[in-house]
Amino acid sequence: MLTEAGTGRTPAEVRALLAGVLAAPEAEDAAAWLVLVGETLPAALADQLQALKALLAAEPQPARPGPAERLAALRAALKRRDLDGFVVPRGDEHQGEYVPPRAQRLAWMTGFTGSAGNMLVTADRAAIFVDGRYTLQVRAEVPADLYEYRHLVEDPLTDWIVAALPQGGRFGFDPWLHTIGWVEKTRPALERAGILLVPCEDNPVDSVWQGQPPSPLTPVVPQDEAFSGESSADKRGRLAEELGRKGIAAAVLTQPDSIAWLLNIRGADVPCTPLPLSFAILSADASVDLFLDGRKLAPQTHAHLGNRVRVRPVEEFGPALDAVARGSARVLADPSCTSAWIVDRLQLAGARVERDGDPCALPKACKTEAELAGARAAHIRDGAAIVRFLRWFSEEAPKGGLTELAVVERLLAFRRENERFCGVSFDTIAGAGPNGAIVHYRVTHDTDRRLEPGSLFLLDSGAQYLDGTTDVTRTLAVGDLAPETAAEMRDRFTRVLKGHIALSTARFPRGTTGSQIDALARLPLWQAGLDYDHGTGHGVGSFLSVHEGPQRISKIGNSVALQPGMILSNEPGYYKTGAYGIRIENLIVVEPLEADGELAGAERPMLAFRPLTLVPIDRKVIEPALLSGAEIAWVDAYHARVCESLSPLLDGETRRWLEEATAPL
Amino acid sequence: MLTEAGTGRTPAEVRALLAGVLAAPEAEDAAAWLVLVGETLPAALADQLQALKALLAAEPQPARPGPAERLAALRAALKRRDLDGFVVPRGDEHQGEYVPPRAQRLAWMTGFTGSAGNMLVTADRAAIFVDGRYTLQVRAEVPADLYEYRHLVEDPLTDWIVAALPQGGRFGFDPWLHTIGWVEKTRPALERAGILLVPCEDNPVDSVWQGQPPSPLTPVVPQDEAFSGESSADKRGRLAEELGRKGIAAAVLTQPDSIAWLLNIRGADVPCTPLPLSFAILSADASVDLFLDGRKLAPQTHAHLGNRVRVRPVEEFGPALDAVARGSARVLADPSCTSAWIVDRLQLAGARVERDGDPCALPKACKTEAELAGARAAHIRDGAAIVRFLRWFSEEAPKGGLTELAVVERLLAFRRENERFCGVSFDTIAGAGPNGAIVHYRVTHDTDRRLEPGSLFLLDSGAQYLDGTTDVTRTLAVGDLAPETAAEMRDRFTRVLKGHIALSTARFPRGTTGSQIDALARLPLWQAGLDYDHGTGHGVGSFLSVHEGPQRISKIGNSVALQPGMILSNEPGYYKTGAYGIRIENLIVVEPLEADGELAGAERPMLAFRPLTLVPIDRKVIEPALLSGAEIAWVDAYHARVCESLSPLLDGETRRWLEEATAPL
Repeated sequence: MLTEAGTGRTPAEVRALLAGVLAAPEAEDAAAWLVLVGETLPAALADQLQALKALLAAEPQPARPGPAERLAALRAALKRRDLDGFVVPRGDEHQGEYVPPRAQRLAWMTGFTGSAGNMLVTADRAAIFVDGRYTLQVRAEVPADLYEYRHLVEDPLTDWIVAALPQGGRFGFDPWLHTIGWVEKTRPALERAGILLVPCEDNPVDSVWQGQPPSPLTPVVPQDEAFSGESSADKRGRLAEELGRKGIAAAVLTQPDSIAWLLNIRGADVPCTPLPLSFAILSADASVDLFLDGRKLAPQTHAHLGNRVRVRPVEEFGPALDAVARGSARVLADPSCTSAWIVDRLQLAGARVERDGDPCALPKACKTEAELAGARAAHIRDGAAIVRFLRWFSEEAPKGGLTELAVVERLLAFRRENERFCGVSFDTIAGAGPNGAIVHYRVTHDTDRRLEPGSLFLLDSGAQYLDGTTDVTRTLAVGDLAPETAAEMRDRFTRVLKGHIALSTARFPRGTTGSQIDALARLPLWQAGLDYDHGTGHGVGSFLSVHEGPQRISKIGNSVALQPGMILSNEPGYYKTGAYGIRIENLIVVEPLEADGELAGAERPMLAFRPLTLVPIDRKVIEPALLSGAEIAWVDAYHARVCESLSPLLDGETRRWLEEATAPL
Repeated sequence: MLTEAGTGRTPAEVRALLAGVLAAPEAEDAAAWLVLVGETLPAALADQLQALKALLAAEPQPARPGPAERLAALRAALKRRDLDGFVVPRGDEHQGEYVPPRAQRLAWMTGFTGSAGNMLVTADRAAIFVDGRYTLQVRAEVPADLYEYRHLVEDPLTDWIVAALPQGGRFGFDPWLHTIGWVEKTRPALERAGILLVPCEDNPVDSVWQGQPPSPLTPVVPQDEAFSGESSADKRGRLAEELGRKGIAAAVLTQPDSIAWLLNIRGADVPCTPLPLSFAILSADASVDLFLDGRKLAPQTHAHLGNRVRVRPVEEFGPALDAVARGSARVLADPSCTSAWIVDRLQLAGARVERDGDPCALPKACKTEAELAGARAAHIRDGAAIVRFLRWFSEEAPKGGLTELAVVERLLAFRRENERFCGVSFDTIAGAGPNGAIVHYRVTHDTDRRLEPGSLFLLDSGAQYLDGTTDVTRTLAVGDLAPETAAEMRDRFTRVLKGHIALSTARFPRGTTGSQIDALARLPLWQAGLDYDHGTGHGVGSFLSVHEGPQRISKIGNSVALQPGMILSNEPGYYKTGAYGIRIENLIVVEPLEADGELAGAERPMLAFRPLTLVPIDRKVIEPALLSGAEIAWVDAYHARVCESLSPLLDGETRRWLEEATAPL
């Protein structure tokens, strides 16, 4: 049948394809992967292929050895390599937020499934380093008799290594999994103690991991220029011009979302972010070498990329680095995200490595008009789905039967009804009562909690649409707030809201950075001796990563000025451990203010934010007495805009519910 | 007579002393210098010495050659040294704000008297680089036929040098006058163009400067522990302990105010800042080598310093650096203020130079209880003098006869009546009308302007008292504001006031930096499309420099957290070129907020500011309609405190004037 359909694939090839498909996240469109076999398959073949996929997915995996055996096997592998210690980080060679199953070495070794951590091992000691979010979880997942628990931030890795290894010790690392920045900070600290930091040619964990999954294999598809607003050729042209001006021969790109933006392609290799894992080299002549598994590319994608983009197997990445380095060429690499392996290879080949930020980061952050139009449209659809959900919630929640998981599923179902929906943009945070105070809470069957009437419920969720990425948090009263805690909850909620409004209404001169205005969102909390321990805003991609740089609104210094077209979140919060959590998050876009229009008499070029998110803020939790007249006017105007924008997408009853939910304060 | 009085000084020695005295600023106490000759001199001898001083001061100086001859002489000196170019900076070897006459090489060469600039010279070109403050002044002072005018910030020095010199050119600099940071930034930029940056053993300007003044010579006196609140031994002890903990053998101190703070000494070598120019080395054993002219020390100062402070001639500084470097010792130096000469010498002698901030900077910034008590007392006396001035101003200004210079003199006269007054802390900025819009304006006979009734007058001044340093700006209506401009002036003034109040009333968690809260002071201006182009606040010393670090409130990122006891200025402003300037400045001190007191329910350790400055804000320029209720309450409470604190120091009529000036809005 494969031959008949003209796919040119043998059954063995299809099995290999399917191994990669099964090592990728389940796609929103269950048939999407079939394009890897062929573009237009007969229905019967498609059915057979889906059946084969189900069969392979059900095949038993090789039994995973116990934690002590895994540790012993790794120690033996280190001994064979003459290493006295080794570090297993959580990240992969792209340093991204999501790591495919193949690269989940930390989880395989230790059992720890959190999103940040490091494992260190020597012949007789082992430790796992996690941050404050995971102090409880690590104890549940990682056996205490094998591993010491350490704090990722407060306990420097190097201190542990220096204490655990003798002078002259050899400490190994996988140079693909650590940035050059990490190596250059770690190496001198170890050398001062007489310890050698040794790059490994292969990863010792891989050598003992029976049944390690292959790399994920998902179709690479073009992102329509109607959505991106700029052709890849134009993007490449302007970036290459900039490289040329600086006398740089080429830039090494290791961030898959940068590459996806530059080439106007999307993929599905990791959860929540529509990107293909890949490396690329952008040359000053505006051509690109793209390193990924060629099987991922459908014929239409080849045509889309054109002949200035050379698709090459990942194995050719090293030789390609040697080639660009030739003649002591100046090659750009971002030290904060480029693997030590890459920089070492470039330097060995004679390149003068220019350390600077990823050249795609800033242009990617400044959205085109088409991307902004897409974002607005996506936020209207997303808002309408959430309003349908909120109406359902307002009816169901007071009954007391809802649980966090049920809410997450219902919200997803409403979003699924939307056009262009491609999945969630991150795992929904649905925190009932005290779970709302856990900033990075992710509900599981073990933690699932009932939404008690009278309590607060924090819901942070987002979606990927072909035309834009959303991310919104609302904190909802479950029925009516309990009288004994209502006053404090309203006070805190309204302070968070005042901070949210302060940022939303701020005007600021061009050149202002996010760290300069972060305090505006915190001040109403500060005045009461309160604060929150996370940033106020992160950049958001355009049908790409829901967390992207280089801009950021946070206490941490950041030299990137806010610029028109940047999309950020505005998400101050307040968390009372063991009781409740509050966060109010909109996405906002940076817009210029016209001196002859909104801002008569302005003496400087000014910028301001405009909300993209269109979702009502729960009026039951607002304490109007704490708001100024201007703040009340902002809430009322925002709600009027929400109502006006979403009503056309809603049925009559939902529209009436929304009118009430957005009535003036 | 000298012998009879037991001074042990010969007439020739006294003449040499007087040369140094005359190369220092005129002291507030005209007899202060006599202690250099002997501690208790007979009146007749004192009179003779003062007469001799007057005689020497009146002696004609050697005629200064014309600008073209000076330039030709310097070019000849460069040729003798085989140099193709040379840089003359404005600073001296301490990189401070004030430069003694001996080090005013830039002014001597070019005629330029501004506070920042560089001169570059080659065999056939010369240029002077100044910033935006001095674009007019430089044209008046520096002949255009000899010098090109360039912008200090926008035109990199290195670009000019690269364009002016051939490949292989030798560009000279005086390594005493440039920081190691400057050299390490400049050298590679020149080397890329094939130009060698050559340190000179002596300064070529000095070799052609006939009659260059000697170094200033003023008495070094102890600063009473009643004012400093901590003995020098204790300060040295805690700093040395910190050095020891870091494995550092010694710290090189090049900042005279750091040394004055560390040793509890004061001097008068430069204007406005009571410090002796000196170098020092603090060893990890808590002893200090202090390098200065021994003639500056009165016997009581020797006793005060004790035997753990070795006073040594400046000529021994180099050999002392060699000595601390011995055995590859780790030696601390601040790259932002340490001369290249010093770091080069250390490295040549084998030291491992640790680059880090001046270790005195942070402890100096966090005032002791005694320093804070002194600051409060000084601000009450200073406030009373200013209120006497303001009453006089309110009577005289409407008549239309005042000029900027007359105001400066009258204000000084009122301050002179105060106890412990030791001079101004900076040159008073008195800007009438459009002169107020020149941020760093300094009135001269040429620019002196009449205060027109109906206009605004900006007055920024400060004083040095033995117990504290003051710095205050008020913007005053001259009579009643002219009706045609009053509304705009009041709008701008009130926005500046709102920013001032926002910062004054802000609460913030420990760990917050000045750059995080800078925007609070700007936001009311930003909302109208306005801003100001200077920082919002600088640190202030304790009877030391009126501008000190390391903290700062500004747009520019700064990683130093605000800490209890730090004194800063709070000085937002608004400037309308050609029309008027507005600034409202108080000094404020960082204080902890008690969670059980002012801030019940606080969940974090919080800080806030408390104003030190006690001077009424001109109610005639406030537009109450633009203020919130809380802002009006702040103004009224501040004014009540001003009135209550100052009244005991005022005569009845002035007290009545103050009561009116501080009446509730």
